Amino acid sequence: MIIVVVGKERQDLVDAAGDGVEVRFVRQLDEADDVFGEMEAVIGRVPPSVLLKAPRLRWVHSPSAGVDADLSPEMLASPVVLTSSAGNGGIPLAEHSMLLMLMLNREVPRWMRAQADHRWERFTHGELAGLTVGIYGLGNSGLDLARKAQAFHMRVLGVRRRVEEPSPYVDLVCDFDQMLAESDFVVVTAPRTPSTAGRFDRDAFARMKSTAYFVCISRGGIADDDALLDALRDGQIAGAGLDAHGVEPLPPDSPFWSLPNVIVTPHNGATSDGTARRGAEIVRENLRRFVNGEVLHNLVDKTAGY
Amino acid sequence: MIIVVVGKERQDLVDAAGDGVEVRFVRQLDEADDVFGEMEAVIGRVPPSVLLKAPRLRWVHSPSAGVDADLSPEMLASPVVLTSSAGNGGIPLAEHSMLLMLMLNREVPRWMRAQADHRWERFTHGELAGLTVGIYGLGNSGLDLARKAQAFHMRVLGVRRRVEEPSPYVDLVCDFDQMLAESDFVVVTAPRTPSTAGRFDRDAFARMKSTAYFVCISRGGIADDDALLDALRDGQIAGAGLDAHGVEPLPPDSPFWSLPNVIVTPHNGATSDGTARRGAEIVRENLRRFVNGEVLHNLVDKTAGY
Repeated sequence: MIIVVVGKERQDLVDAAGDGVEVRFVRQLDEADDVFGEMEAVIGRVPPSVLLKAPRLRWVHSPSAGVDADLSPEMLASPVVLTSSAGNGGIPLAEHSMLLMLMLNREVPRWMRAQADHRWERFTHGELAGLTVGIYGLGNSGLDLARKAQAFHMRVLGVRRRVEEPSPYVDLVCDFDQMLAESDFVVVTAPRTPSTAGRFDRDAFARMKSTAYFVCISRGGIADDDALLDALRDGQIAGAGLDAHGVEPLPPDSPFWSLPNVIVTPHNGATSDGTARRGAEIVRENLRRFVNGEVLHNLVDKTAGY
Repeated sequence: MIIVVVGKERQDLVDAAGDGVEVRFVRQLDEADDVFGEMEAVIGRVPPSVLLKAPRLRWVHSPSAGVDADLSPEMLASPVVLTSSAGNGGIPLAEHSMLLMLMLNREVPRWMRAQADHRWERFTHGELAGLTVGIYGLGNSGLDLARKAQAFHMRVLGVRRRVEEPSPYVDLVCDFDQMLAESDFVVVTAPRTPSTAGRFDRDAFARMKSTAYFVCISRGGIADDDALLDALRDGQIAGAGLDAHGVEPLPPDSPFWSLPNVIVTPHNGATSDGTARRGAEIVRENLRRFVNGEVLHNLVDKTAGY
C-alpha cells in the first residue's frame, strides 16, 4: 500500500502506518506523480487533476479544519472518503474570538495609540458581562467559545444546523433572526458551505443592533463583504473584528484595513504550536485507523460541506 | 442624623436614608465644614484633618474597592468604621486581566502595527490553553479571573492570605514561591497593604520563568517598579501588562510606555458603567443598613488593609 503525505518527513507517521505500507513524503503532490496510479491515500490537498489520475485513491485527509478548498466538483463526485483536521484549532480560535470581543468592547486601539504617545488617556468603556453573544456555528470553536463566554457572564445564543446535537454552555439554540436581533456580538465560527456562503447579507446586517459587533474567525465569504462594508460605514452595526476575510491575503487597498471601527488580523487566530500538535495527532490517529480498516475520525459530509 | 455624601445628588440615597436623616450632598468634603461637628457618616474619602474635627463620625464608606488611600494613620487610630466598595469592579478587572494576557500571548501590538500599514503579516503565536496562571490575591477580581482562566483551559494557582476561605475555580492555593516558579502569567489582583507593598521585588522577578509575563490590575507599588523595569530590560521575564502603576498618572517620561514587551493601560480596567452601577448599589445598601443599625457590608480590617 502506498500513502502519500504532503509535508515534512515524520517518523511517527511511518510508525503509525506500520510494516508493509510505503509512506512517501513530498513537498508538493506533483512530486509523487509516478505513484498517482497506485496511491490509496493522500494526506494533503488533492487538486481535481490528480483526483482524476488516481483510480485506487480511497482516502484524502485535509490539513485544514474547514474543507471548503478541498471540495472541488471532482471531489464531490468522487467516492473518495474525505476527512478533516477539525478540532486542531478550535481552542485558539475561541481565544481569538474572546480577544477580538474584548478589544472591540474596550476600544483597545485607543489605548495603544495613547501608549505610543505616552498619553494617560482614561475613558469609560464597556464590559462583556451582561451582554449577549450569538455564535453562528457550534462546532469545536463555537462550543469552546460558548464555555468562555459563560465564564464572562454573557448570555450565549447559538445557531446550528444539527440542532439535535448537544450544545453545552449555550443558553439558547435559536434561529438566525432571533440571534441577529438579540446579540451584542455575532461571532461566525461556521465552515464555509453552500448554505453558509453569503448568509450575512444586507438583510442580516440590517437586522443586527446598531450597537452590535460582527466577528468572523472561521472563513471569509460567509459575510458578503460589500454588505459588511456598507453596514460598517453607515453605522448599521458598531464595528467588526475580522480574522477571516473574503479575499486572502487582504489586499493593501482593501477598505477594511483603515475603517476606524474594524480590527483586522491576518487569518492568524489559530496559528499556534498547539494547533500544529493537535493536527499532527489527528493525522496520526486517522492513518493508523485507515491502515487497520477502522472507522476514521472527522469524516466530512461532502454535501453538507463539513 | 446628618450624613454627608461627596458626589452628585441621588434620590435613591435620600430614599434609602429615610425620614429623619439629613443627607447632604457636596462636591468636596470642605463644603460641609459647617456640619463636621455633627455628621455621623461620610460617603466619600475623609482626609485626616477632617477626621480630627468630626467627633460624632462613626462610619466612612470609601468609593474605592481598594482603601489604601483612605487608610491614613489618623484613620488607623480612629474608632470610625470604614467600609469599601469592593465588588464594584471585580468582573471588569478580570476581563481586563484576560485581555492583557491574550494581548501578550498573541503579540497583539504586532497585528495593530501591521493593520496600520495594511500589511498581511502572519506569525506563530501562543495560546493560553495549557499554560499556568498564578493569581496573587483571591478577592472579587482574582476569583472571577480564576473562573475565566479555567474556561481557557489554564491551570490556576492562587496565593491568598486567608487560605481557609473557599477558592472556587482555583486548582491549587499555594505559597508565593511556588506560584512564581510555576506560572506563565503572574496576575496581581491584591490590594496594596503593608504586607503586599513591594512584595514583587528583585528576588521575586528572579524566581519567575524567563518566559513568564507579569500583569497588574489592582494597585501599583505592589511591584517595586525599579526591579520590574530591570527584569523587563534584562529579559528576566518576557513582558508585562500594566493597568495599575507605582506613580499615577504614569509620567510621560516613564520608561514603561516605550518598552517593546510592555502593554500600558491607564488604570482604566474597571471604568465601566457596570462598575458605577454596582458601586451605587453597594453604597445604597450600606446606607440603609447604617440608618437601621444593621451590620454593614464590606467592613475593612484596617490593620490588614482591606
